[in-house]
Amino acid sequence: MKILITNDDGIHAPGVHKLAEMASRYGDVVVVAPDGPRSAQSMALTITIPISAKIIKRERNITWYQCSGTPADCVKLACSQLLDSAPDIILSGINHGSNTSVNVLYSGTIGAALEGAMHDVPSIGFSICDHSLEVSFEYCLPLFEQVLANTIKYGLPHDICLNVNAPVGPVRGMRLCRQSAGRWANDFTRDNAPRTTDFYWMVGDFFNTEPDETADQASVELGYVTVVPIQIDMTAYSAMEHCKKIVE
Amino acid sequence: MKILITNDDGIHAPGVHKLAEMASRYGDVVVVAPDGPRSAQSMALTITIPISAKIIKRERNITWYQCSGTPADCVKLACSQLLDSAPDIILSGINHGSNTSVNVLYSGTIGAALEGAMHDVPSIGFSICDHSLEVSFEYCLPLFEQVLANTIKYGLPHDICLNVNAPVGPVRGMRLCRQSAGRWANDFTRDNAPRTTDFYWMVGDFFNTEPDETADQASVELGYVTVVPIQIDMTAYSAMEHCKKIVE
Repeated sequence: MKILITNDDGIHAPGVHKLAEMASRYGDVVVVAPDGPRSAQSMALTITIPISAKIIKRERNITWYQCSGTPADCVKLACSQLLDSAPDIILSGINHGSNTSVNVLYSGTIGAALEGAMHDVPSIGFSICDHSLEVSFEYCLPLFEQVLANTIKYGLPHDICLNVNAPVGPVRGMRLCRQSAGRWANDFTRDNAPRTTDFYWMVGDFFNTEPDETADQASVELGYVTVVPIQIDMTAYSAMEHCKKIVE
Repeated sequence: MKILITNDDGIHAPGVHKLAEMASRYGDVVVVAPDGPRSAQSMALTITIPISAKIIKRERNITWYQCSGTPADCVKLACSQLLDSAPDIILSGINHGSNTSVNVLYSGTIGAALEGAMHDVPSIGFSICDHSLEVSFEYCLPLFEQVLANTIKYGLPHDICLNVNAPVGPVRGMRLCRQSAGRWANDFTRDNAPRTTDFYWMVGDFFNTEPDETADQASVELGYVTVVPIQIDMTAYSAMEHCKKIVE
Protein backbone atom coordinates (compact mmCIF):
# COMPACT_ATOMS: atom_id res chain seq x y z
CA MET A 1 0.00 0.00 0.00
CA LYS A 2 1.42 3.39 -1.01
CA ILE A 3 -0.09 6.39 0.80
CA LEU A 4 0.45 10.02 -0.24
CA ILE A 5 -0.15 12.71 2.38
CA THR A 6 -0.27 16.50 2.17
CA ASN A 7 -1.84 19.35 4.13
CA ASP A 8 -2.33 23.11 3.99
CA ASP A 9 -0.91 24.15 7.38
CA GLY A 10 2.58 23.23 6.21
CA ILE A 11 4.98 20.40 6.93
CA HIS A 12 5.70 21.55 10.50
CA ALA A 13 2.06 21.50 11.67
CA PRO A 14 1.25 18.79 14.25
CA GLY A 15 -1.80 17.59 12.28
CA VAL A 16 0.17 16.21 9.34
CA HIS A 17 2.53 14.37 11.70
CA LYS A 18 -0.40 12.71 13.49
CA LEU A 19 -1.90 11.72 10.15
CA ALA A 20 1.39 10.30 8.81
CA GLU A 21 1.88 8.28 12.00
CA MET A 22 -1.62 6.81 11.77
CA ALA A 23 -1.37 6.10 8.03
CA SER A 24 2.05 4.44 8.38
CA ARG A 25 0.31 1.45 10.00
CA TYR A 26 -1.47 0.84 6.68
CA GLY A 27 1.40 1.13 4.22
CA ASP A 28 4.41 3.14 3.11
CA VAL A 29 3.84 6.85 3.44
CA VAL A 30 5.20 9.70 1.34
CA VAL A 31 4.41 13.15 2.70
CA VAL A 32 4.66 16.01 0.18
CA ALA A 33 3.61 19.08 2.14
CA PRO A 34 3.99 22.83 1.72
CA ASP A 35 7.03 24.47 3.35
CA GLY A 36 4.73 26.81 5.31
CA PRO A 37 1.08 27.70 5.85
CA ARG A 38 -1.15 27.58 2.74
CA SER A 39 -4.54 27.90 4.43
CA ALA A 40 -7.47 29.12 2.31
CA GLN A 41 -5.58 28.29 -0.90
CA SER A 42 -8.54 26.36 -2.30
CA MET A 43 -7.42 24.49 -5.44
CA ALA A 44 -4.94 27.21 -6.38
CA LEU A 45 -2.03 26.12 -8.58
CA THR A 46 1.35 27.77 -9.04
CA ILE A 47 1.74 28.63 -12.72
CA THR A 48 3.77 31.85 -12.96
CA ILE A 49 6.85 30.61 -11.09
CA PRO A 50 8.44 27.15 -10.87
CA ILE A 51 8.07 25.05 -7.72
CA SER A 52 10.62 22.84 -5.99
CA ALA A 53 10.54 19.89 -3.61
CA LYS A 54 13.22 18.14 -1.56
CA ILE A 55 13.38 15.26 0.89
CA ILE A 56 13.96 16.60 4.39
CA LYS A 57 13.57 13.40 6.41
CA ARG A 58 13.17 9.63 6.10
CA GLU A 59 12.10 7.73 9.20
CA ARG A 60 10.77 4.18 9.35
CA ASN A 61 8.37 3.88 6.39
CA ILE A 62 7.67 7.62 6.07
CA THR A 63 9.46 9.90 3.58
CA TRP A 64 9.01 13.65 4.03
CA TYR A 65 9.20 16.06 1.08
CA GLN A 66 8.93 19.80 1.63
CA CYS A 67 7.43 21.63 -1.37
CA SER A 68 7.28 25.32 -2.25
CA GLY A 69 3.81 25.03 -3.83
CA THR A 70 0.18 24.90 -2.79
CA PRO A 71 -1.55 21.76 -1.48
CA ALA A 72 -2.98 21.00 -4.95
CA ASP A 73 0.52 21.54 -6.42
CA CYS A 74 1.90 19.02 -3.90
CA VAL A 75 -0.53 16.32 -5.07
CA LYS A 76 0.12 17.06 -8.75
CA LEU A 77 3.90 17.08 -8.27
CA ALA A 78 3.87 13.87 -6.22
CA CYS A 79 1.70 11.98 -8.72
CA SER A 80 3.48 13.37 -11.77
CA GLN A 81 7.16 13.49 -10.69
CA LEU A 82 8.09 12.40 -7.18
CA LEU A 83 6.42 8.97 -6.86
CA ASP A 84 7.45 5.95 -8.95
CA SER A 85 3.82 4.91 -9.39
CA ALA A 86 0.37 6.23 -8.48
CA PRO A 87 -0.50 6.19 -4.78
CA ASP A 88 -3.28 3.85 -3.59
CA ILE A 89 -4.81 6.54 -1.42
CA ILE A 90 -4.28 10.27 -0.81
CA LEU A 91 -4.83 11.91 2.58
CA SER A 92 -4.83 15.64 3.35
CA GLY A 93 -4.62 17.20 6.83
CA ILE A 94 -5.20 16.86 9.64
CA ASN A 95 -6.19 20.49 9.12
CA HIS A 96 -6.11 22.80 12.11
CA GLY A 97 -9.49 24.48 11.58
CA SER A 98 -12.96 23.68 10.32
CA ASN A 99 -13.72 22.78 6.72
CA THR A 100 -17.45 22.34 7.18
CA SER A 101 -20.14 24.16 5.19
CA VAL A 102 -18.96 26.63 2.53
CA ASN A 103 -15.43 26.53 3.95
CA VAL A 104 -14.92 23.44 1.84
CA LEU A 105 -14.60 25.76 -1.18
CA TYR A 106 -11.78 27.86 0.30
CA SER A 107 -9.91 24.99 1.88
CA GLY A 108 -6.42 24.08 0.72
CA THR A 109 -6.83 20.77 2.57
CA ILE A 110 -9.87 19.93 0.46
CA GLY A 111 -8.30 21.40 -2.68
CA ALA A 112 -5.64 18.70 -2.33
CA ALA A 113 -8.27 15.98 -1.82
CA LEU A 114 -10.15 17.15 -4.94
CA GLU A 115 -6.87 17.07 -6.86
CA GLY A 116 -6.44 13.50 -5.64
CA ALA A 117 -9.91 12.60 -6.91
CA MET A 118 -8.98 14.14 -10.28
CA HIS A 119 -6.08 11.66 -10.39
CA ASP A 120 -8.67 8.92 -9.81
CA VAL A 121 -7.17 7.99 -6.43
CA PRO A 122 -9.44 7.64 -3.35
CA SER A 123 -8.78 10.84 -1.38
CA ILE A 124 -9.78 12.13 2.04
CA GLY A 125 -9.42 15.55 3.68
CA PHE A 126 -9.35 15.44 7.51
CA SER A 127 -9.92 18.50 9.71
CA ILE A 128 -10.40 19.27 13.39
CA CYS A 129 -12.53 22.32 14.15
CA ASP A 130 -9.94 24.33 16.10
CA HIS A 131 -7.13 26.50 14.72
CA SER A 132 -4.82 25.85 17.68
CA LEU A 133 -1.63 23.94 16.93
CA GLU A 134 -1.87 22.50 20.48
CA VAL A 135 -5.28 20.87 19.89
CA SER A 136 -5.60 17.24 21.01
CA PHE A 137 -6.41 14.64 18.34
CA GLU A 138 -7.06 11.96 20.98
CA TYR A 139 -10.82 11.70 20.50
CA CYS A 140 -11.10 12.02 16.75
CA LEU A 141 -8.17 9.84 15.66
CA PRO A 142 -9.93 6.46 16.13
CA LEU A 143 -12.80 7.63 13.91
CA PHE A 144 -10.43 9.11 11.32
CA GLU A 145 -8.71 5.73 11.28
CA GLN A 146 -12.06 4.00 10.71
CA VAL A 147 -12.68 6.26 7.70
CA LEU A 148 -9.22 5.46 6.35
CA ALA A 149 -9.58 1.70 6.87
CA ASN A 150 -13.04 1.59 5.29
CA THR A 151 -11.98 3.75 2.36
CA ILE A 152 -9.11 1.35 1.72
CA LYS A 153 -11.59 -1.54 1.96
CA TYR A 154 -14.49 -0.14 -0.09
CA GLY A 155 -12.86 2.54 -2.27
CA LEU A 156 -14.71 5.65 -3.43
CA PRO A 157 -16.75 6.35 -6.58
CA HIS A 158 -14.92 8.15 -9.41
CA ASP A 159 -14.53 11.93 -9.14
CA ILE A 160 -15.60 11.96 -5.48
CA CYS A 161 -13.57 12.52 -2.32
CA LEU A 162 -14.38 12.79 1.38
CA ASN A 163 -14.45 15.88 3.60
CA VAL A 164 -14.14 14.69 7.21
CA ASN A 165 -14.44 17.12 10.14
CA ALA A 166 -14.15 16.48 13.86
CA PRO A 167 -15.23 18.52 16.87
CA VAL A 168 -12.75 19.31 19.64
CA GLY A 169 -12.98 16.96 22.62
CA PRO A 170 -15.10 13.84 23.07
CA VAL A 171 -17.15 12.73 20.05
CA ARG A 172 -20.68 11.30 19.97
CA GLY A 173 -20.10 9.17 16.91
CA MET A 174 -19.80 9.60 13.15
CA ARG A 175 -22.38 10.96 10.73
CA LEU A 176 -22.65 10.88 6.94
CA CYS A 177 -23.83 14.40 6.07
CA ARG A 178 -24.45 16.82 3.29
CA GLN A 179 -22.70 20.22 3.17
CA SER A 180 -24.48 22.93 5.21
CA ALA A 181 -25.44 26.27 3.75
CA GLY A 182 -23.48 29.11 5.36
CA ARG A 183 -22.23 32.67 4.96
CA TRP A 184 -19.27 34.78 6.00
CA ALA A 185 -19.82 38.42 6.96
CA ASN A 186 -17.73 41.28 8.38
CA ASP A 187 -14.93 40.03 6.20
CA PHE A 188 -12.24 42.63 6.87
CA THR A 189 -10.78 44.99 9.43
CA ARG A 190 -9.41 48.22 8.00
CA ASP A 191 -6.20 49.79 9.22
CA ASN A 192 -3.76 52.51 8.20
CA ALA A 193 -0.51 51.41 6.65
CA PRO A 194 2.56 53.49 7.48
CA ARG A 195 3.52 54.40 3.91
CA THR A 196 0.66 53.49 1.64
CA THR A 197 -3.07 53.46 1.20
CA ASP A 198 -5.48 51.80 3.64
CA PHE A 199 -5.04 48.10 4.09
CA TYR A 200 -7.41 45.35 5.06
CA TRP A 201 -6.91 42.18 7.08
CA MET A 202 -9.28 39.34 6.36
CA VAL A 203 -11.19 38.32 9.46
CA GLY A 204 -14.90 37.43 9.19
CA ASP A 205 -17.73 35.89 11.15
CA PHE A 206 -19.30 32.65 9.99
CA PHE A 207 -23.08 32.22 10.05
CA ASN A 208 -24.70 28.82 9.74
CA THR A 209 -27.76 29.49 7.56
CA GLU A 210 -28.68 25.81 7.27
CA PRO A 211 -31.93 24.81 9.01
CA ASP A 212 -31.20 21.06 8.71
CA GLU A 213 -29.43 19.85 11.88
CA THR A 214 -28.23 16.69 10.16
CA ALA A 215 -26.05 18.70 7.74
CA ASP A 216 -22.34 18.96 8.55
CA GLN A 217 -22.07 22.27 10.44
CA ALA A 218 -24.76 21.51 13.03
CA SER A 219 -23.62 17.90 13.31
CA VAL A 220 -20.05 18.80 14.18
CA GLU A 221 -21.38 21.33 16.71
CA LEU A 222 -23.47 18.52 18.22
CA GLY A 223 -20.28 16.50 18.70
CA TYR A 224 -20.22 14.23 15.66
CA VAL A 225 -17.36 13.49 13.31
CA THR A 226 -18.91 14.39 9.94
CA VAL A 227 -18.21 12.71 6.60
CA VAL A 228 -19.36 14.59 3.49
CA PRO A 229 -18.73 13.05 0.07
CA ILE A 230 -17.95 15.90 -2.34
CA GLN A 231 -17.67 15.90 -6.09
CA ILE A 232 -15.69 17.44 -8.92
CA ASP A 233 -18.84 18.03 -10.96
CA MET A 234 -20.05 21.49 -9.88
CA THR A 235 -23.01 21.55 -12.28
CA ALA A 236 -26.21 22.86 -10.67
CA TYR A 237 -28.61 20.37 -12.26
CA SER A 238 -31.47 21.84 -10.22
CA ALA A 239 -30.97 25.18 -11.98
CA MET A 240 -31.20 23.88 -15.56
CA GLU A 241 -34.89 24.65 -15.96
CA HIS A 242 -34.44 28.24 -14.73
CA CYS A 243 -31.39 28.77 -16.93
CA LYS A 244 -33.18 27.81 -20.13
CA LYS A 245 -34.63 31.32 -20.03
CA ILE A 246 -31.12 32.79 -19.97
CA VAL A 247 -29.82 31.04 -23.09
CA GLU A 248 -32.98 31.29 -25.22
CA MET B 1 -28.13 49.21 -11.47
CA LYS B 2 -24.78 48.72 -9.73
CA ILE B 3 -22.42 46.24 -11.40
CA LEU B 4 -19.25 44.86 -9.79
CA ILE B 5 -16.59 43.43 -12.09
CA THR B 6 -13.39 41.52 -11.40
CA ASN B 7 -11.15 39.07 -13.26
CA ASP B 8 -8.12 36.87 -12.73
CA ASP B 9 -5.86 38.05 -15.54
CA GLY B 10 -5.38 41.38 -13.77
CA ILE B 11 -6.64 44.89 -14.32
CA HIS B 12 -4.55 45.46 -17.44
CA ALA B 13 -5.91 42.48 -19.39
CA PRO B 14 -8.06 43.38 -22.43
CA GLY B 15 -10.88 41.02 -21.36
CA VAL B 16 -11.87 43.00 -18.27
CA HIS B 17 -11.92 46.24 -20.28
CA LYS B 18 -14.26 44.70 -22.88
CA LEU B 19 -16.52 43.42 -20.11
CA ALA B 20 -16.61 46.78 -18.29
CA GLU B 21 -17.44 48.58 -21.53
CA MET B 22 -20.31 46.19 -22.28
CA ALA B 23 -21.65 46.25 -18.71
CA SER B 24 -21.54 50.06 -18.52
CA ARG B 25 -24.54 50.16 -20.87
CA TYR B 26 -26.60 48.45 -18.13
CA GLY B 27 -25.62 50.47 -15.06
CA ASP B 28 -22.80 52.01 -13.06
CA VAL B 29 -19.73 49.80 -13.02
CA VAL B 30 -17.12 49.38 -10.31
CA VAL B 31 -14.16 47.26 -11.34
CA VAL B 32 -12.11 45.79 -8.47
CA ALA B 33 -9.47 43.70 -10.17
CA PRO B 34 -6.11 42.20 -9.17
CA ASP B 35 -3.00 44.30 -9.86
CA GLY B 36 -1.52 41.47 -11.94
CA PRO B 37 -2.23 37.94 -13.15
CA ARG B 38 -3.96 35.61 -10.67
CA SER B 39 -4.81 32.74 -13.00
CA ALA B 40 -5.49 29.33 -11.42
CA GLN B 41 -6.10 30.94 -8.03
CA SER B 42 -9.39 29.07 -7.59
CA MET B 43 -11.23 30.53 -4.56
CA ALA B 44 -7.97 31.27 -2.73
CA LEU B 45 -8.15 34.03 -0.11
CA THR B 46 -5.31 36.13 1.29
CA ILE B 47 -5.22 35.58 5.05
CA THR B 48 -1.58 35.80 6.16
CA ILE B 49 -0.89 39.33 4.86
CA PRO B 50 -3.17 42.37 4.54
CA ILE B 51 -4.48 43.45 1.14
CA SER B 52 -4.92 46.94 -0.26
CA ALA B 53 -7.01 48.58 -2.96
CA LYS B 54 -6.91 52.00 -4.59
CA ILE B 55 -8.79 53.84 -7.31
CA ILE B 56 -6.60 54.17 -10.38
CA LYS B 57 -9.12 55.62 -12.85
CA ARG B 58 -12.63 57.03 -13.16
CA GLU B 59 -14.09 57.39 -16.64
CA ARG B 60 -17.73 57.89 -17.56
CA ASN B 61 -19.69 55.56 -15.25
CA ILE B 62 -16.81 53.15 -14.61
CA THR B 63 -14.59 53.30 -11.50
CA TRP B 64 -11.41 51.22 -11.54
CA TYR B 65 -9.89 49.85 -8.32
CA GLN B 66 -6.63 47.93 -8.41
CA CYS B 67 -6.34 45.36 -5.60
CA SER B 68 -3.40 43.37 -4.28
CA GLY B 69 -5.51 40.28 -3.55
CA THR B 70 -6.96 37.30 -5.37
CA PRO B 71 -10.17 37.44 -7.46
CA ALA B 72 -12.23 36.10 -4.51
CA ASP B 73 -10.55 38.69 -2.24
CA CYS B 74 -11.60 41.41 -4.72
CA VAL B 75 -15.26 40.41 -4.49
CA LYS B 76 -15.16 40.14 -0.69
CA LEU B 77 -13.39 43.49 -0.33
CA ALA B 78 -15.74 45.25 -2.73
CA CYS B 79 -18.88 43.91 -1.05
CA SER B 80 -17.58 44.42 2.46
CA GLN B 81 -15.62 47.70 2.26
CA LEU B 82 -15.39 49.49 -1.08
CA LEU B 83 -19.03 49.69 -2.21
CA ASP B 84 -21.68 51.72 -0.37
CA SER B 85 -24.26 48.99 -0.89
CA ALA B 86 -24.41 45.48 -2.35
CA PRO B 87 -24.03 45.23 -6.13
CA ASP B 88 -27.00 44.06 -8.20
CA ILE B 89 -24.84 41.75 -10.27
CA ILE B 90 -21.23 40.54 -10.24
CA LEU B 91 -19.29 39.74 -13.43
CA SER B 92 -15.87 38.10 -13.67
CA GLY B 93 -13.66 38.01 -16.76
CA ILE B 94 -13.58 38.03 -19.66
CA ASN B 95 -10.96 35.40 -18.87
CA HIS B 96 -8.25 34.80 -21.45
CA GLY B 97 -8.37 31.00 -21.44
CA SER B 98 -10.86 28.16 -21.11
CA ASN B 99 -12.75 27.44 -17.91
CA THR B 100 -14.68 24.47 -19.25
CA SER B 101 -14.71 20.99 -17.68
CA VAL B 102 -12.64 20.50 -14.52
CA ASN B 103 -10.85 23.81 -15.12
CA VAL B 104 -13.80 25.43 -13.38
CA LEU B 105 -12.31 24.23 -10.08
CA TYR B 106 -8.91 25.89 -10.61
CA SER B 107 -10.25 29.09 -12.11
CA GLY B 108 -9.80 32.40 -10.32
CA THR B 109 -12.45 33.84 -12.65
CA ILE B 110 -14.97 31.30 -11.40
CA GLY B 111 -13.70 31.56 -7.81
CA ALA B 112 -14.81 35.20 -7.94
CA ALA B 113 -18.22 34.25 -9.36
CA LEU B 114 -18.71 31.65 -6.63
CA GLU B 115 -17.77 34.29 -4.04
CA GLY B 116 -20.43 36.52 -5.60
CA ALA B 117 -23.01 33.73 -5.26
CA MET B 118 -22.01 33.37 -1.60
CA HIS B 119 -22.93 37.04 -1.19
CA ASP B 120 -26.31 36.16 -2.70
CA VAL B 121 -25.71 38.35 -5.76
CA PRO B 122 -26.33 36.93 -9.28
CA SER B 123 -22.82 36.27 -10.61
CA ILE B 124 -21.37 35.25 -13.96
CA GLY B 125 -17.87 34.19 -15.00
CA PHE B 126 -17.08 34.80 -18.69
CA SER B 127 -14.17 33.18 -20.53
CA ILE B 128 -12.90 32.88 -24.09
CA CYS B 129 -11.00 29.69 -24.89
CA ASP B 130 -7.70 31.27 -25.92
CA HIS B 131 -4.88 32.52 -23.70
CA SER B 132 -3.79 35.22 -26.12
CA LEU B 133 -4.23 38.81 -24.95
CA GLU B 134 -4.80 39.74 -28.63
CA VAL B 135 -7.83 37.47 -29.04
CA SER B 136 -10.90 39.03 -30.69
CA PHE B 137 -14.10 39.20 -28.63
CA GLU B 138 -16.14 40.24 -31.67
CA TYR B 139 -18.12 37.02 -32.10
CA CYS B 140 -18.79 36.13 -28.48
CA LEU B 141 -19.67 39.56 -27.08
CA PRO B 142 -23.27 39.68 -28.39
CA LEU B 143 -24.00 36.33 -26.71
CA PHE B 144 -22.25 37.36 -23.48
CA GLU B 145 -24.45 40.44 -23.53
CA GLN B 146 -27.54 38.27 -23.94
CA VAL B 147 -26.51 36.24 -20.86
CA LEU B 148 -25.99 39.46 -18.91
CA ALA B 149 -29.33 40.99 -19.99
CA ASN B 150 -31.27 37.80 -19.24
CA THR B 151 -29.58 37.31 -15.88
CA ILE B 152 -30.55 40.87 -14.95
CA LYS B 153 -34.10 40.10 -16.11
CA TYR B 154 -34.60 36.63 -14.58
CA GLY B 155 -32.04 36.49 -11.76
CA LEU B 156 -30.39 33.27 -10.62
CA PRO B 157 -31.35 30.74 -7.95
CA HIS B 158 -29.61 31.10 -4.56
CA ASP B 159 -26.07 29.71 -4.23
CA ILE B 160 -25.72 29.26 -8.00
CA CYS B 161 -23.65 31.19 -10.54
CA LEU B 162 -22.94 30.84 -14.26
CA ASN B 163 -19.79 29.63 -15.99
CA VAL B 164 -19.89 30.95 -19.57
CA ASN B 165 -17.27 29.93 -22.14
CA ALA B 166 -16.86 30.99 -25.76
CA PRO B 167 -14.90 29.49 -28.65
CA VAL B 168 -12.52 31.65 -30.66
CA GLY B 169 -14.00 32.95 -33.90
CA PRO B 170 -17.54 32.62 -35.24
CA VAL B 171 -20.08 30.96 -32.93
CA ARG B 172 -22.88 28.54 -33.83
CA GLY B 173 -25.15 29.65 -31.00
CA MET B 174 -25.48 29.20 -27.26
CA ARG B 175 -25.96 25.98 -25.28
CA LEU B 176 -26.98 25.28 -21.71
CA CYS B 177 -24.61 22.49 -20.64
CA ARG B 178 -23.37 20.42 -17.77
CA GLN B 179 -19.69 20.34 -16.83
CA SER B 180 -17.65 17.81 -18.82
CA ALA B 181 -15.49 15.20 -17.15
CA GLY B 182 -11.80 15.79 -17.90
CA ARG B 183 -8.26 15.14 -16.76
CA TRP B 184 -4.88 16.87 -16.82
CA ALA B 185 -1.74 14.81 -17.37
CA ASN B 186 1.98 15.47 -17.91
CA ASP B 187 1.63 18.23 -15.36
CA PHE B 188 5.23 19.45 -15.06
CA THR B 189 8.48 19.93 -16.90
CA ARG B 190 11.59 19.41 -14.79
CA ASP B 191 14.62 21.61 -15.02
CA ASN B 192 17.83 22.32 -13.15
CA ALA B 193 17.98 25.47 -11.10
CA PRO B 194 21.32 27.27 -10.96
CA ARG B 195 21.76 27.20 -7.19
CA THR B 196 19.20 24.84 -5.74
CA THR B 197 17.45 21.54 -6.11
CA ASP B 198 15.46 20.56 -9.22
CA PHE B 199 12.54 22.76 -10.07
CA TYR B 200 9.30 22.13 -11.90
CA TRP B 201 7.20 24.33 -14.17
CA MET B 202 3.54 23.50 -14.37
CA VAL B 203 2.48 22.73 -17.93
CA GLY B 204 0.06 19.86 -18.61
CA ASP B 205 -2.10 18.36 -21.33
CA PHE B 206 -5.88 18.36 -20.99
CA PHE B 207 -7.89 15.27 -21.93
CA ASN B 208 -11.62 15.42 -22.45
CA THR B 209 -12.86 12.15 -20.91
CA GLU B 210 -16.54 13.04 -21.32
CA PRO B 211 -18.43 10.92 -23.86
CA ASP B 212 -21.44 13.28 -23.89
CA GLU B 213 -21.03 15.80 -26.75
CA THR B 214 -23.64 18.12 -25.26
CA ALA B 215 -21.46 18.76 -22.17
CA ASP B 216 -19.43 21.98 -22.09
CA GLN B 217 -16.02 20.90 -23.43
CA ALA B 218 -17.29 19.24 -26.62
CA SER B 219 -19.88 21.99 -27.12
CA VAL B 220 -17.35 24.80 -27.06
CA GLU B 221 -15.16 22.78 -29.46
CA LEU B 222 -18.19 22.48 -31.76
CA GLY B 223 -18.46 26.29 -31.78
CA TYR B 224 -21.10 27.00 -29.14
CA VAL B 225 -20.99 29.53 -26.33
CA THR B 226 -21.63 27.29 -23.31
CA VAL B 227 -23.52 28.25 -20.15
CA VAL B 228 -23.08 25.94 -17.15
CA PRO B 229 -24.90 26.76 -13.92
CA ILE B 230 -22.60 25.77 -11.04
CA GLN B 231 -23.32 25.51 -7.34
CA ILE B 232 -21.75 26.14 -3.96
CA ASP B 233 -23.04 22.84 -2.61
CA MET B 234 -20.32 20.29 -3.45
CA THR B 235 -22.12 17.36 -1.78
CA ALA B 236 -22.00 14.18 -3.87
CA TYR B 237 -25.56 13.03 -3.20
CA SER B 238 -25.09 10.12 -5.61
CA ALA B 239 -22.33 8.74 -3.35
CA MET B 240 -24.35 8.68 -0.12
CA GLU B 241 -25.36 5.03 -0.44
CA HIS B 242 -21.77 3.92 -1.05
CA CYS B 243 -20.46 6.05 1.83
CA LYS B 244 -22.79 4.48 4.40
CA LYS B 245 -20.33 1.57 4.46
CA ILE B 246 -17.51 3.96 5.36
CA VAL B 247 -19.16 5.53 8.42
CA GLU B 248 -20.77 2.36 9.83
